[in-house]
Amino acid sequence: MFLTRTEYDRGVNTFSPEGRLFQVEYAIEAIKLGSTAIGLKTKEGVVLAVEKRITSPLLEPSSVEKIMEIDDHIGCAMSGLIADARTLVEHARVETQNHRFSYGEPMTVESTTQALCDLALRFGEGDEESMSRPFGVSLLIAGHDENGPSLYYTDPSGTFWQCNAKAIGSGSEGADSSLQEQYNKDITLKEAETIALSILRQVMEEKVTPNNVDIAKVAPAYHLYTPSEVEAVINRL
Amino acid sequence: MFLTRTEYDRGVNTFSPEGRLFQVEYAIEAIKLGSTAIGLKTKEGVVLAVEKRITSPLLEPSSVEKIMEIDDHIGCAMSGLIADARTLVEHARVETQNHRFSYGEPMTVESTTQALCDLALRFGEGDEESMSRPFGVSLLIAGHDENGPSLYYTDPSGTFWQCNAKAIGSGSEGADSSLQEQYNKDITLKEAETIALSILRQVMEEKVTPNNVDIAKVAPAYHLYTPSEVEAVINRL
Amino acid sequence: MFLTRTEYDRGVNTFSPEGRLFQVEYAIEAIKLGSTAIGLKTKEGVVLAVEKRITSPLLEPSSVEKIMEIDDHIGCAMSGLIADARTLVEHARVETQNHRFSYGEPMTVESTTQALCDLALRFGEGDEESMSRPFGVSLLIAGHDENGPSLYYTDPSGTFWQCNAKAIGSGSEGADSSLQEQYNKDITLKEAETIALSILRQVMEEKVTPNNVDIAKVAPAYHLYTPSEVEAVINRL
Amino acid sequence: MFLTRTEYDRGVNTFSPEGRLFQVEYAIEAIKLGSTAIGLKTKEGVVLAVEKRITSPLLEPSSVEKIMEIDDHIGCAMSGLIADARTLVEHARVETQNHRFSYGEPMTVESTTQALCDLALRFGEGDEESMSRPFGVSLLIAGHDENGPSLYYTDPSGTFWQCNAKAIGSGSEGADSSLQEQYNKDITLKEAETIALSILRQVMEEKVTPNNVDIAKVAPAYHLYTPSEVEAVINRL
Amino acid sequence: MFLTRTEYDRGVNTFSPEGRLFQVEYAIEAIKLGSTAIGLKTKEGVVLAVEKRITSPLLEPSSVEKIMEIDDHIGCAMSGLIADARTLVEHARVETQNHRFSYGEPMTVESTTQALCDLALRFGEGDEESMSRPFGVSLLIAGHDENGPSLYYTDPSGTFWQCNAKAIGSGSEGADSSLQEQYNKDITLKEAETIALSILRQVMEEKVTPNNVDIAKVAPAYHLYTPSEVEAVINRL
Amino acid sequence: MFLTRTEYDRGVNTFSPEGRLFQVEYAIEAIKLGSTAIGLKTKEGVVLAVEKRITSPLLEPSSVEKIMEIDDHIGCAMSGLIADARTLVEHARVETQNHRFSYGEPMTVESTTQALCDLALRFGEGDEESMSRPFGVSLLIAGHDENGPSLYYTDPSGTFWQCNAKAIGSGSEGADSSLQEQYNKDITLKEAETIALSILRQVMEEKVTPNNVDIAKVAPAYHLYTPSEVEAVINRL
Amino acid sequence: MFLTRTEYDRGVNTFSPEGRLFQVEYAIEAIKLGSTAIGLKTKEGVVLAVEKRITSPLLEPSSVEKIMEIDDHIGCAMSGLIADARTLVEHARVETQNHRFSYGEPMTVESTTQALCDLALRFGEGDEESMSRPFGVSLLIAGHDENGPSLYYTDPSGTFWQCNAKAIGSGSEGADSSLQEQYNKDITLKEAETIALSILRQVMEEKVTPNNVDIAKVAPAYHLYTPSEVEAVINRL
Repeated sequence: MFLTRTEYDRGVNTFSPEGRLFQVEYAIEAIKLGSTAIGLKTKEGVVLAVEKRITSPLLEPSSVEKIMEIDDHIGCAMSGLIADARTLVEHARVETQNHRFSYGEPMTVESTTQALCDLALRFGEGDEESMSRPFGVSLLIAGHDENGPSLYYTDPSGTFWQCNAKAIGSGSEGADSSLQEQYNKDITLKEAETIALSILRQVMEEKVTPNNVDIAKVAPAYHLYTPSEVEAVINRL
Repeated sequence: MFLTRTEYDRGVNTFSPEGRLFQVEYAIEAIKLGSTAIGLKTKEGVVLAVEKRITSPLLEPSSVEKIMEIDDHIGCAMSGLIADARTLVEHARVETQNHRFSYGEPMTVESTTQALCDLALRFGEGDEESMSRPFGVSLLIAGHDENGPSLYYTDPSGTFWQCNAKAIGSGSEGADSSLQEQYNKDITLKEAETIALSILRQVMEEKVTPNNVDIAKVAPAYHLYTPSEVEAVINRL
Repeated sequence: MFLTRTEYDRGVNTFSPEGRLFQVEYAIEAIKLGSTAIGLKTKEGVVLAVEKRITSPLLEPSSVEKIMEIDDHIGCAMSGLIADARTLVEHARVETQNHRFSYGEPMTVESTTQALCDLALRFGEGDEESMSRPFGVSLLIAGHDENGPSLYYTDPSGTFWQCNAKAIGSGSEGADSSLQEQYNKDITLKEAETIALSILRQVMEEKVTPNNVDIAKVAPAYHLYTPSEVEAVINRL
Repeated sequence: MFLTRTEYDRGVNTFSPEGRLFQVEYAIEAIKLGSTAIGLKTKEGVVLAVEKRITSPLLEPSSVEKIMEIDDHIGCAMSGLIADARTLVEHARVETQNHRFSYGEPMTVESTTQALCDLALRFGEGDEESMSRPFGVSLLIAGHDENGPSLYYTDPSGTFWQCNAKAIGSGSEGADSSLQEQYNKDITLKEAETIALSILRQVMEEKVTPNNVDIAKVAPAYHLYTPSEVEAVINRL
Repeated sequence: MFLTRTEYDRGVNTFSPEGRLFQVEYAIEAIKLGSTAIGLKTKEGVVLAVEKRITSPLLEPSSVEKIMEIDDHIGCAMSGLIADARTLVEHARVETQNHRFSYGEPMTVESTTQALCDLALRFGEGDEESMSRPFGVSLLIAGHDENGPSLYYTDPSGTFWQCNAKAIGSGSEGADSSLQEQYNKDITLKEAETIALSILRQVMEEKVTPNNVDIAKVAPAYHLYTPSEVEAVINRL
Repeated sequence: MFLTRTEYDRGVNTFSPEGRLFQVEYAIEAIKLGSTAIGLKTKEGVVLAVEKRITSPLLEPSSVEKIMEIDDHIGCAMSGLIADARTLVEHARVETQNHRFSYGEPMTVESTTQALCDLALRFGEGDEESMSRPFGVSLLIAGHDENGPSLYYTDPSGTFWQCNAKAIGSGSEGADSSLQEQYNKDITLKEAETIALSILRQVMEEKVTPNNVDIAKVAPAYHLYTPSEVEAVINRL
Repeated sequence: MFLTRTEYDRGVNTFSPEGRLFQVEYAIEAIKLGSTAIGLKTKEGVVLAVEKRITSPLLEPSSVEKIMEIDDHIGCAMSGLIADARTLVEHARVETQNHRFSYGEPMTVESTTQALCDLALRFGEGDEESMSRPFGVSLLIAGHDENGPSLYYTDPSGTFWQCNAKAIGSGSEGADSSLQEQYNKDITLKEAETIALSILRQVMEEKVTPNNVDIAKVAPAYHLYTPSEVEAVINRL
C-alpha cells in the first residue's frame, strides 16, 4: 500500500520492512522518464545512440549532450537527470586523468565504471563528493582497452553489469527486446549503427533527424558523429 | 494528490516515488511568479531585455537590477528571487576573475555557465558555498568568446541549455511562442532589440517606458543601455 | 489552506509548492508589528524619522534606539526585532571599519547594504555568522558617499532596493501613500523633516513629543537630533 | 488556536506565521513564575531588592542568591531559572575581568549588558558558549560608571532597555504600577530602599523578614546588605 | 492534557508554552523512584545516611554504593540513576584533584558543587563532557572547609541550595517533614546519626540492618561507617 | 498505554514523563531473549557457565563464543547481541593491555568493569567510541586480583553490581532462584561447576552436551574448559 | 502489528520495545530476495557455489560476479545487494594487504572475517568508512590458513559463525536441510563440488549451465572455476 511506504523512505538510505531501498527505486523511476539510449558491442568497437528531446526549435541541438567523452578510449550515453550525469562524468574524467598521470597508462574501462559506481553508492553518507540522494541517472559506458571493446551499464544503486547490448530510458523495454532479436556477437560496427538507429526510430515519437539523435563510437577511440555522419546512417535505414 | 506529496519533499533533496525532485519543482514555481526576461542571439551579438516591476514611484528604477554584468564579455538577465541571483552572479564574477588571473585569458561562456550550475546543483549538501535549498532563479546568460556569441538558459536544477532565443519568468509561455514566430538566425542586432521589446510589451501589464524595462547587449562587450538608448528602441516599436 | 502550509515551513529555508519561502514571509509579518520608520532623500542629504514606543514612563527614552549610526557617513532606522537589528548593525560597523582600514577610504553605501543583505540571505545555513532563522527586521539605510546621498531599504529576504522615500513598520502602508503625495525630488532637507514628522504623527496613536520620536540626518555626516532639535521640528508642524 | 502553534515552535528559533518566536515567549512565561525583583535608580546610586522563596525552614537563606555581583561597580537581580542566571552572570564576570585586564579600566554598564544580551540572543545557534534554548531569566543590571548610575532590564530575547525603575517576576505587574506612582528622579537612595521594600511587601504572600528578601546597592560600589542592614530598612517601613 | 505535552519535550532542552522544561521535570520523576537519602549538618560535621535496595541475597551489599567520597573533605549521597551519579562524582573528583594540584589547597565545598552543577546544566548542548539528556540524579553533598561544615542539595536542573538538613528520593516527602520536626542547629553529630537512621527506618519497607543502609560523616574528614559502626547506631534506636 | 510511549523513545537517550529511559529498557528486553549464562564466586575462584544455541548441526560449536577472555586474570560470559559483546570485550582488552603497559601491573577487576560501563553509558552521545544506541548485552565479569576472586554483573544502562552468584539471559529468572537455594559462600570450585551446570540443564530445552555449553574459571588465571573437561563436569551431574 | 513497528525503525539503529533492531531485520529480508550461495568445508579445502541470475541474454555472464577473491588464501560468495558486497570485499582486500605489508604474513581467515564484521556493525554511526544503513548482504567466507580450511558465515548485524556447510539467499532454507542430509566432514573436495551443484540445481528455477552458476575453491589457494571446469562438474551430476 502506498501510504506505509512513505514511512520508510524518509531516511534517505534505509531499508523498508521488505528489505528494499525506496530512494534508489524512486531514482530508477526518474530514469524511466528519461530519453532512450542504446549501446551495442561489436568486435570492431562499441556504438552508442541516443534520442535528444529538443523541446523548442529555439534550442541549440548540439547543446543537448546525451553522449559525452570520458577519456580518449571511453565515452558514455546517459538517461535521466542531465545535471547529475554531468557530475558523474566530471568525476570520471578526473579519475581517468589522475590514473594516466600516476601510472602513465589509460585506466581500464572496468576500473572507470567502478569509480563511478563507488561515488553513486555512497549517496546520503555526508561525504564531500557524494550527494544527499541517489544520482538520478543510468549510464551506458562504452570503452576500449587491453581487453578489447566493452560496454557497461550502471544504475542509481551503484551496481554495474557488462553487456553485449543494452537500452536505457523511457523506451528501454521495447528496445531491449528488439536488441535481443536483432543482436548477435558477429555484427559489424556498421550493422550496429543501423540496428541502434532503427530501434531508436521505433521508440521515438517523432521522425529521426540529425537534430534529434546523437551517435558515437569507441573503435578504439571515442568519436561523436557529425550531423552529416548521422545523416548517412539515417539514409541507410 | 496533494497531501502525499508533502511526505516526500521534506528531505530537501530526495526523490518522490515517481522519481521527481519536488524542491526543484517548487523553485521553478517561484520563477513562474518572476518578471519576464528575454534573450536573442544574432550573428552580431546577444540582446537581453527584462521587465522591471517598479512597485512604488518612490523606488529608484536603476536600483532594480534584473540584468547584471558577470565579466566584460558576459552578462545575464534573471527571473525569480533577486537575492539568490545576486549570490550566483557574485560567484560567477569570482570564477571569471580567477580564470583571468590564472590563465591570462577570459573564461568561456560555457565554462562560466557550468560553474554557476555546479553551485546550483549541490543545494542541500551542506557545502560551504551551496545553499540549503535550490536557488529560486533562472538565468539567461549572454556572452561572446572565441566561438562567437552564445546564449545559455539555466534552471534551478542546475541544468543548462544553449539557445538561439529564450524567454523566462511569468510571461515566458506567450513570449516563447512569439519568439518562435519572429526569430530567425539572420536577424540583425537592431531587429533583435525591436523583437525583444515588442514581445515584452505584449506580456507586461503596463506601458513600456525606459523606467520599467532594461536592455543590454554583449556585442562583443557587455553594455547596459542608458535610458535614452532604451527610449530610442521604444520609439522604433 | 492553513494546515498544509505547516508541512513546508519546518525546513527553515525550503520552498512551498507554490514556490514561496514561508519563514521569510513570517519574518516580514514580524516587521508589520514593529514601530513605523520613515526615510526621505533630498539633494542636501537623507532624513530618517522613527516612532519610539515607550511602554512605561520609567523607561529611559534615549535607551530605545531605533536609529543607529553605522559609520560617519551612514546611519539606519529599523523596524522589527531590536536584538536582530543590533546584530546586523554591529556586523555592518565591523565591515565599514575593516574597509576603512584596508583601503583607506569609506565603504560606499551600496556595498555596506550588500554586506548586510549577504548576512541576512544566508540564514539557516549553519555559517558561523548567520542565524538559524531570518533576521526579523527591516532597515532604512541612509548614507552619503561619492555618488551623493542615497537611501536603501532592506527586507528579511536579503533583498534591497534604492528609494527616494520609504516607510516601514506597522504604519508603513498609510505612510507610503502619504509619501507619494507629498514627496518630490526637489524638497529641501528642512521640508523632508517636516514631511517625515507629520506623516509619523498620522500613524502614531499618541501625541508626538521629543520622547517618542527620533530624527537623524546624513548630510553628509550622520547626526542624531537632540531633544531640542526634535522639539524644533515638532513646533514647525 | 493552541494546536497549530505547536507546529511552529519545534524549530527552537523559527518564526510562526504571525511573525512570533514562541520559544522566546515561553521563556518569558518561565519568568512570570519567578520571584519578584525590583530596581530603582537615584542620583546617589541604584538599589536592587528581591524576594527569596525559602521553601523549607531547613534551607540556608544565604544560599538562595537572587542578587549577584558582576564587578565592583555592577550587580544584578534576577528572576527565572537560577542555573541559567548563574551562567549569564559567570559570562559577564569573565567579560568585565577581561576588559579590565585588556584596557586597564572598568567595562561600562551598557557594554556589560550588551555582552550578556549577545550571548542570550544566539540561543539555538550551536555556538560553543550559547544554549540550545533561550535563557529562562530576566535581569535587572545595576551599575555605576563614568556616566553615573544606571539600571538596565534584559529579557530572554536578548533585548535590553535602560530604566529609571523596573520590576520583574511574578509580581511585576502590580509592582510596576506602584513604582510609577511612587518613583521620581529626585528620591534619595534611602527613600529608594524604602519604596523597593514596601512594594515587595505588597506582592509577597508572607511577612517580610531579613531571611526572605535581599537588598543591594551600587553607589558607586556594589554592596549586598547584611541581615541587620536589611532589618533596619524593614523597621523603617 | 497529556498529549500536548509530548509536542514540546522532544527537543531535549526547550520550553513548553507554560515556560517549563519537561526533560528536567521527567528526570526529577526518575529520582522520585530512587532510594531515600538523608543529610544533616551539625556543628561537629555532616552526617549522610542512605537506604540500599539489595534486590537479591546474592548481591554483594558493599558493591551497592549510594554514598561516595569526592575528596578527603567532601562526600555525597545520591538518589536516582547510579551510572549517572558515578559520572558526576568522577567529574567532581577530577575537579578537586586539579584544584589541589594547581592551587595547593583543597577546593571549597561550594566550588565543587558549582562544578557539578555546571556539568548538569549543559545537557543537550553537544559538549564533549555533557550528556544528551539531564543527569537523572540528585545529590546531597557534605563537606567541611574553611567555612566549617556544609551540606548542599543539587537537582537535575543544575540548581543547588545550601541546607541544614535534607532528604531526597522516594521517601523524601515524609522524611523532610520528620526532619523539620526533629532537627535543630545544636544537635550533636551522634544525635544526627540517630535522627537520620530513625527517619530512614520509617520510610523503608524492610527492617534496617547494616546490609541495607550506609552511613558516612564528614567531620572534618570523610568517613564511611563500617558495618559494626552502623550496627552500633542501629542499636541506639 | 503503548502508543504514548513511542512519543518519548525516539530521542535515543531521553526521559519519559515517568522518568524512564525506554531505549535502555528495550535493550534489556533484547537480553531476555538471549541464551542463559551463570556465574558463581567461590573462595578458590569464579566459575562461568553458558548455554550455546547451536541452531544447525553444520555450525562449528567452538565458533559460538559466549565466554571470552579479557586478560589473564579476567574473563566474561555474555547474553544478548554477540556483535555488541565483541565490541565491549575488545574495548576492555585494549584498556587492560594499556594499563599493564602504563603501570606494569594488571588492571583490577572493578576498574575493568567500570571502563566497560563508561563506554556503555555514553550511547547516543556521538563520541568516537560510543554507539548510537545502548549495547544490547549483559555481561558476567569474573576476575581475580589483589582483593581475591570477584564477580560483576553489568546491564545496558552502564550500571554494575558485585555479586556472589548471578544468572543472565532468557532463563535468568528461574536460574537466579535456584542459585539462591543452592549457593553459599563456602562451596568449593568443583561444587560451583556442578551447581552451574545443573541449573543450566534445568533452563535449557535440550540435553546438555560438551557442544552446547561452555564452562570457564578464573582461579586465579582464566581457563576455558576443553570439551573433555566439560564432559567430566556433565558426568558428575 | 505492522504500523507500530514503523515508530521504531526510523532511528536507523535503535531498539524496538521488544528489544529488536528492525533495520538489521529488514536488511536480512533483502538477502532473502538474493540469489542462493552454498559453501562446504572439506579436509582438502572449501568449495563455494552460487547461482547467477542472468536477466537478459545480452548480459555478459562473467560480469555478474557473485564469488570474489579477497586474498590468495581467502574468497567469498555473496547474496544480497551486489554494490554493498563490493564495498565490504574491497575493505577486506585492503585489510589483508595491509596485514601482509605490516607483518609479512597472510591475515588469518577469522581476523579477516572480524574486520568485515566490525565495519558492518557500525552502520549509522557516522564513521568515515561505515554506511548510514546496514550492509544488505550476507557472505560465505572460505579460507585456508595455519589452522587449515575454514568457512565463515556473516549477516548484516555484524555477527559471524564458523560453519562446516552453509547456504544463504532465497533458496537457503531448502538448501540448508539438503546440506544437513548430504554433508559429513569426511567428504572429498570433489564430492563437495557435486553436492553444492546438485543442491543449487534443486533451488534454481532454470537449468544449470556454466553461464548461470559459478564455482570456486580455496584449496589452499583461491581458484575460480573456468566455464569448462564448471561444465565438468555439471556433467558429473
